[in-house]
Amino acid sequence: MSKSRGRVTLPSEANFLKETEEMLERWGADALRDSDGTKLDDEIKALNAKIYTTYFVARGHNEFAETHMEECQQLYLMSRHNTATGSSLDIPFMDGYYQEQVIPDYLHDPKKWWEVIDRTTQQTVPADQWTLDQEKHLVHIRNAEEFHEYTVSFLVYAIWDPTQMYNHITNNWGNKPHEIPFDVRQTASGSFAKEYLRKWLLENPDTDVVRFTTFFYHFTLVFNNHAKEKYVDWFGYGATVSVKALEEFEREYGYALRPEDIVDNGYYNSTFRVPTPAYLDYMDFVQRFVAKKAKELVEIVHEAGREAMMFLGDNWIGTEPYGKYFQNIGLDAVVGSVGGGVSLRLISEIPGVKYTEGRFLPYFFPDTFYEGNDPCPEAARNWLTARRALMRKPVDRIGYGGYLSLAYRFPKFVDYIEHVTDEFREIYENVHGGRPYCGLKVAVLNSWGAIRSWQAYMVAHELRYKQCYSYMGMMEALSGAAVDVTFLSFRDLREHGIPEDIDVIINAGDAGTAFSGGEEWADPELVSMLRRWVYAGGGFLGVGEPCAYHKGGRYFQLADVLGVDKELGFTLSTDKYYTQAQEEHFINCDRSEPYDFGESMKNVYALSEETEILEYSDGEVHAAAHPYGEGYGVYLAGLPYSYANTRLLMRALYYAAGKTDRYQIWYAGNQNCEVNAYPDTGRFAVQNNSMEEQRTLVYDGEGRAEEYVLGPGEILWKEISSI
Amino acid sequence: MSKSRGRVTLPSEANFLKETEEMLERWGADALRDSDGTKLDDEIKALNAKIYTTYFVARGHNEFAETHMEECQQLYLMSRHNTATGSSLDIPFMDGYYQEQVIPDYLHDPKKWWEVIDRTTQQTVPADQWTLDQEKHLVHIRNAEEFHEYTVSFLVYAIWDPTQMYNHITNNWGNKPHEIPFDVRQTASGSFAKEYLRKWLLENPDTDVVRFTTFFYHFTLVFNNHAKEKYVDWFGYGATVSVKALEEFEREYGYALRPEDIVDNGYYNSTFRVPTPAYLDYMDFVQRFVAKKAKELVEIVHEAGREAMMFLGDNWIGTEPYGKYFQNIGLDAVVGSVGGGVSLRLISEIPGVKYTEGRFLPYFFPDTFYEGNDPCPEAARNWLTARRALMRKPVDRIGYGGYLSLAYRFPKFVDYIEHVTDEFREIYENVHGGRPYCGLKVAVLNSWGAIRSWQAYMVAHELRYKQCYSYMGMMEALSGAAVDVTFLSFRDLREHGIPEDIDVIINAGDAGTAFSGGEEWADPELVSMLRRWVYAGGGFLGVGEPCAYHKGGRYFQLADVLGVDKELGFTLSTDKYYTQAQEEHFINCDRSEPYDFGESMKNVYALSEETEILEYSDGEVHAAAHPYGEGYGVYLAGLPYSYANTRLLMRALYYAAGKTDRYQIWYAGNQNCEVNAYPDTGRFAVQNNSMEEQRTLVYDGEGRAEEYVLGPGEILWKEISSI
Repeated sequence: MSKSRGRVTLPSEANFLKETEEMLERWGADALRDSDGTKLDDEIKALNAKIYTTYFVARGHNEFAETHMEECQQLYLMSRHNTATGSSLDIPFMDGYYQEQVIPDYLHDPKKWWEVIDRTTQQTVPADQWTLDQEKHLVHIRNAEEFHEYTVSFLVYAIWDPTQMYNHITNNWGNKPHEIPFDVRQTASGSFAKEYLRKWLLENPDTDVVRFTTFFYHFTLVFNNHAKEKYVDWFGYGATVSVKALEEFEREYGYALRPEDIVDNGYYNSTFRVPTPAYLDYMDFVQRFVAKKAKELVEIVHEAGREAMMFLGDNWIGTEPYGKYFQNIGLDAVVGSVGGGVSLRLISEIPGVKYTEGRFLPYFFPDTFYEGNDPCPEAARNWLTARRALMRKPVDRIGYGGYLSLAYRFPKFVDYIEHVTDEFREIYENVHGGRPYCGLKVAVLNSWGAIRSWQAYMVAHELRYKQCYSYMGMMEALSGAAVDVTFLSFRDLREHGIPEDIDVIINAGDAGTAFSGGEEWADPELVSMLRRWVYAGGGFLGVGEPCAYHKGGRYFQLADVLGVDKELGFTLSTDKYYTQAQEEHFINCDRSEPYDFGESMKNVYALSEETEILEYSDGEVHAAAHPYGEGYGVYLAGLPYSYANTRLLMRALYYAAGKTDRYQIWYAGNQNCEVNAYPDTGRFAVQNNSMEEQRTLVYDGEGRAEEYVLGPGEILWKEISSI
Repeated sequence: MSKSRGRVTLPSEANFLKETEEMLERWGADALRDSDGTKLDDEIKALNAKIYTTYFVARGHNEFAETHMEECQQLYLMSRHNTATGSSLDIPFMDGYYQEQVIPDYLHDPKKWWEVIDRTTQQTVPADQWTLDQEKHLVHIRNAEEFHEYTVSFLVYAIWDPTQMYNHITNNWGNKPHEIPFDVRQTASGSFAKEYLRKWLLENPDTDVVRFTTFFYHFTLVFNNHAKEKYVDWFGYGATVSVKALEEFEREYGYALRPEDIVDNGYYNSTFRVPTPAYLDYMDFVQRFVAKKAKELVEIVHEAGREAMMFLGDNWIGTEPYGKYFQNIGLDAVVGSVGGGVSLRLISEIPGVKYTEGRFLPYFFPDTFYEGNDPCPEAARNWLTARRALMRKPVDRIGYGGYLSLAYRFPKFVDYIEHVTDEFREIYENVHGGRPYCGLKVAVLNSWGAIRSWQAYMVAHELRYKQCYSYMGMMEALSGAAVDVTFLSFRDLREHGIPEDIDVIINAGDAGTAFSGGEEWADPELVSMLRRWVYAGGGFLGVGEPCAYHKGGRYFQLADVLGVDKELGFTLSTDKYYTQAQEEHFINCDRSEPYDFGESMKNVYALSEETEILEYSDGEVHAAAHPYGEGYGVYLAGLPYSYANTRLLMRALYYAAGKTDRYQIWYAGNQNCEVNAYPDTGRFAVQNNSMEEQRTLVYDGEGRAEEYVLGPGEILWKEISSI
């Protein structure tokens, strides 16, 4: 079989020519990149491969920034809560912050731009009731209410880019200058960004692809007084703030933002907060600015005959690849880090670019590539997890990062990645461009909708959090499942109704968060729209505390649809008679292992004998279904990721959709395997998601079954007529 | 040793004379009572013992009630939630109710007295938009909002007393007439109640004690269409309602109650609901009426030279032994059922009666007393649990109920109760009247305060509920602990401040319930009052979701005091660095077994390095302490009852109070044992709460220790000077 080539990007480094050539050949790579800490030398740049070069727009130019400190990026920060134990109170508002990262902005009038809030009443303290000591960074409040808590929301300048700071501190870079982040919204910075790029392109003629890392505003990342991470929000617009931005916002929108609109009680509009109208306006405002400015840079790149690629991270804030303005930027490509199926889909689904690229794990760094460690298991885990999503919607390229010289010392790893890159190209050839068979169309409903496609429940770009994994598991399961997935916001529903082609709407999350929806569910229009739709045959799947808002004797506002509600303590006096799980049910009939609802949910109970209880233990319902008119509600207490839970989810979706007769279509009986069919190309694939041999029945498009045996991780490609 | 006698009540029955005499002698009993299903005959009534006779005021007189059906007791009931799937909706509001118990009241104008509510908007539907079909018990709504949910709140007549109904159905009493409950607020019923009592007293000259079971209004107990319990609230005022009552209320208070004030979204003002001002007014209104009417009956009893005793149960609603009006009734005694320490204190602390009596378990019924079963373990468990509370504040008498002839067949049981009755009298002689040593004064703070003394977290008189046992355990621990316990409401604090002698305030319960306080914590005055008090040296103990109300960036409004808060998902982006439990701490230094927080609480985290984490597991803090000025906050995730948790609570209280140096005073080192000292009588007792032999150090009032060995369940009485 002749070696396939292309669609793979390698990191390389100086003085590594011969080995780079060998690796280009073995992995079939056609592009080379630099990484943090590596540079490509001229010999390597002359190889037969595209050259990607990392480019920073808004940092790494201290020669400019140091002479324009008034154009540093800004943030609104909130002090700790401070209790007034007497009638006056001093708030050392910088306490807990790292003064090498941020310094108070005393250039703009604090009386105008800052806010002191009595958090016990939520009232703003009038500006004439406090004074500021700029020497000691103290706000002094007069006539404080005793034993009320107060906070100061204050503007700072960011004087150190947080990513460089992290690397600087972690790697003990000593005297290396701190890279100062400047704000391209300001006049001098805006001009500089363009001029410098033009110059840089002239100086870097070998660069084929300018890899923007990224544009203008870093996600919110603030350090504490021990120089450790204090607050990190990968989605946060914190660092986009400036007095200029606030003034422009007011001119455009006709109202001024308060500091509290940004600070939000110290939550800083986390994606878990139901977004306020003001914050949504502000996001839109920033996005339009970022798209406009980024477009100018991309045009410069194009004029120089190069490609423009965006790294989905670091200074990506405001680009919002699923937002309204992203496609105006005119980027050629987006590259992002792949932690699993969800982050793969997050990259591969981005609309309006020529190609997408996923950087796979492990990163070629000494934390994995050290003597005595085998990097293959991490690589295989990463590959098999992300592969499920590739089978649905592939990225156009894959790549790796770090020190190639490190990876090169692990021959078994080099072999494994040779297999991975070949397999990737095979998948891509089969899958690319066609539409895989989808048994259902599923909409994930939350406060964000499409703009946060594949981004729900994420903290800090897909870290595992106790409060999230039971919902992230559902997203991970969906990322590789044979269903269409779309994302809807409550606003979408109000403005456009429920799209006609949706089979099941999923609402999942903890009560009060943007993902379950909180006070959105107080809206009679929303609630009745969903009831009407399910009643007419739709499916509603609730996970955790879906549609939770306490009103009218219900906690789950669609309790009538779900057939379950959560006991808050107010109906303990009402007898709960429905405690028997059904002996047989479509949704769990093939479950062979104990249930795992992750963090699960307490105190959920069935409302009537019509509720089909699937699992009941410890005095609680954790899984149930319920007919509602022509449709169904299904409830699951949580869904951490596993093959068994993926199966549970798929059965729940088919049941909710009333399409159980269509379940065994392009279907593998063994839960470790999955089937994807590609009618456009006339092929289908049976994949073994596990690292063990598996035997499975495979059902074709007509529901006819045949048995297959698959080796560890194997994919079998077949013609559709062949079964 | 000569046999002690008295303070014990026995049930007896007809044709059981000789054995009754024997049992009177062996158990030292001095009173005899009838029970459900038993009557005393003349021979037995002639024995040397007081005779108690059960008396029903408002049921069991069908000869009267049947001729005054318009004076039946009434309730407001709520229909199920009904979804309008079109523009009109029929609500069969009686669905799910038992028509042999309740029938709709069509005598009073439903348009005036009923309420149809759109539960999706919480708006009342105008009366001209619905009609009523009295034949089919249907409310028909015109112009319904499609896919809104509607409920009907409607008045019914209760035509069968629920306790008699339960016994009737359970025991298959067939044609035995249904006892009709009548309402003494109505003219004829009010007169009848008095006249009949006068007559009855004449007819029952042997009765020494009229045991009222009870007065006028049964706790809310509603059955479903299968004649099974549907709703039971031992505290519920549901059956006190009538059109007459509502009219009198309006005249007196100047405003009319809505049905919703009683129905409360179908929660019927459960004690877990933060009470509304209207419901508190209504309770007060009912209490005044009940006290006035009951006083009239008690006076009749006294005029006949008898004693009046009230059974704390059944028709006890409105008497509120801890309320403002109870003492006006003039009762001689209260008797109640003892399930453990909490219910013992609930009885023994009732103010303003000459004596209290506890009916102990097991009840002499065939469910326990059957061939092959040993009733002793249940008796011992009940006795040892309640005994802790007796040591603090004894009831004046104990007793048993049921068929004496059944118990008589179990000689080992008869022996054991002989021991119990002797031990009770010994305790009583030592403890009665004096004030036991109290190391601390503790206040339980909730929405109810004193009126629900020892009644917090109770559903249906101390049944075990998943949602309660982790808080009831704290109450049970307190019931036998060497601390003063008082109950305060938020209103008490607002009106009178925090009493000077309180060492620790406890707030415990699930968020939003009357026991943690819900929206009460939005009040800046309350929050700052408590902060000020702790800051000056007070102790605040929070259990579960104390002071939980989401506001100002806090969920626990006293998070600054407790040093912990609960993660709602909004601060996931904020790093939580405080995850190390302290190696040594006063509160848990003697814990030798795994923690048991019962239902526990998720997602609680420490706010700063000042928080003293006592237990950290599964990414959560479950026990912590925190200095606050001169005082302390302590947090516990839950406290199911056990000797180890009693110890944990006591240490937490002493730590919160800042009195750790006073902890080992009248103290037993072994957690299975406790010490109670009675300075007034110069004695102290060391008790073994377990059924195994125990060895323990005993610390006296000066903190000097001596070792004791105690047999199973033993109490050693010593002179204070003897150690």
